[in-house]
Amino acid sequence: MMFPQALAAAVGKVQARLAQELFPFDDQPVVHAMRYALAGGKGLRGFLVLESAALHGVPADAALPAAAAVEAIHAYSLVHDDLPAMDDDDLRRGQPTVHVKWDEATAILAGDALQTLGFQLLTDSVLGAADRRLALVSGLARAAGAQGMVLGQALDIAAETAARPLSLEEITALQAGKTGALIVWSAEAGPVLAGADPAPMRRYAKALGLAFQIADDILDIEGDPERAGKRLQKDMVAGKATFVSHLGLEGARQRARALVEEAEAALAPFGDRARTLREAARFVIARDM
Amino acid sequence: MMFPQALAAAVGKVQARLAQELFPFDDQPVVHAMRYALAGGKGLRGFLVLESAALHGVPADAALPAAAAVEAIHAYSLVHDDLPAMDDDDLRRGQPTVHVKWDEATAILAGDALQTLGFQLLTDSVLGAADRRLALVSGLARAAGAQGMVLGQALDIAAETAARPLSLEEITALQAGKTGALIVWSAEAGPVLAGADPAPMRRYAKALGLAFQIADDILDIEGDPERAGKRLQKDMVAGKATFVSHLGLEGARQRARALVEEAEAALAPFGDRARTLREAARFVIARDM
Repeated sequence: MMFPQALAAAVGKVQARLAQELFPFDDQPVVHAMRYALAGGKGLRGFLVLESAALHGVPADAALPAAAAVEAIHAYSLVHDDLPAMDDDDLRRGQPTVHVKWDEATAILAGDALQTLGFQLLTDSVLGAADRRLALVSGLARAAGAQGMVLGQALDIAAETAARPLSLEEITALQAGKTGALIVWSAEAGPVLAGADPAPMRRYAKALGLAFQIADDILDIEGDPERAGKRLQKDMVAGKATFVSHLGLEGARQRARALVEEAEAALAPFGDRARTLREAARFVIARDM
Repeated sequence: MMFPQALAAAVGKVQARLAQELFPFDDQPVVHAMRYALAGGKGLRGFLVLESAALHGVPADAALPAAAAVEAIHAYSLVHDDLPAMDDDDLRRGQPTVHVKWDEATAILAGDALQTLGFQLLTDSVLGAADRRLALVSGLARAAGAQGMVLGQALDIAAETAARPLSLEEITALQAGKTGALIVWSAEAGPVLAGADPAPMRRYAKALGLAFQIADDILDIEGDPERAGKRLQKDMVAGKATFVSHLGLEGARQRARALVEEAEAALAPFGDRARTLREAARFVIARDM
């Protein structure tokens, strides 16, 4: 299957699993806000989980809760990131952000509950050995917490009031936490569930995650706000250091291309079976949204 | 051991476990804020986990991560609850709340990371069967999420703008989520880890949790702000429905006493071994902070 079709199929499965999970929930605004925040995402992380599972002989049913879990954690981070005290964004995926559509209290609570939902999903119905499922929970907690995603977001916010712009090394470290940790966890889910060596998938995902962030910085300069569904050039206006401000547009494009080659090389042990993941890496830097 | 000594001993162990867990974390404001939020709590939930474990023959070492986990989840909920968009409290345990001492972004992130830490702790080093550890993770996710604690908090915030004050049944349902779910999970941790019947501990904890909330409402009217370390009479000033506004002070005291008797009765199967938990129930309604 080609990447766009494979991604759409993954998004469909993950959205259905999330809808099923939320179905018995109490009919409160916070639950409506959770559903809203889960809808319309690119679904890259969930796709990585399903693809990584298929590559390691893990049945799709066994991997689906993990794919839904990482999308819930990702959605929680976006809802909290958009809050006035954080990035103060009023548009996301072309729609009003949660605190704009509802209010700040609902956005804080919906984000909180989406994080909880992520861990709940991981324990619900994943087939396979309990020890491997625990390893997944533990890994997601590390990726999402104060040593992973939350650390990256904290560094990002601190950078806004720092005396000098961040160095390239600092931006890279920030990205590794803010978006990289969840992407690496997603790609490693397959080998973890299969009890296989996670090293090739980790190398792939580290390069992919960094390429993804660089593409995001390029898109922030060159993108069409209509297609991107969010305000652009916020970083540039704020004078924030990005991969583009350090490397220039052409330098950033070159770096992203080199990372995609690195990601493809990491997949060598899987031969032709990894062609969708190879294509995913190429799409990440070619995307326009 | 008498309850105050047993509680102090539990708090000491849990605080040491949390300090050990946070020790390798990156030295960021968000980590300082996490430590700050974890310090100085009453520690009732962690105590319940350790006591419930002891009652079911589970070694203290095997239960300690679960005790630390529930204190981390509880701390996260307090940090987010205190935010301006939620209860807007500037004092907690006699100290400035996290968003006052740092800022809102740090408080949101510290709360987020404390929730993640809770789930991480549960998977780290709990001894015993992996399936039981997964049952603990799953139970905590349900207790903390949009069907438990977050639901209770959402109902609480909705009540502030509701056309009529909440009924006694509605307040009871709200409390069951907001504070009850974590207390029940804490008390059930012992039988879950031991593979024993959780029903007696559940009955105990449901009555204890409700008595605890009624005592809180009484304290909000009668308490000394100095000793309580937080602003009091906020509910009364806001015209919010509480157990006291429905039952009156004397009626609320009677209801709390009846619940304590119910909690003690639930412990009958454990005989004299449950005397510390019996005492805990009596202290909960006698407390002045």
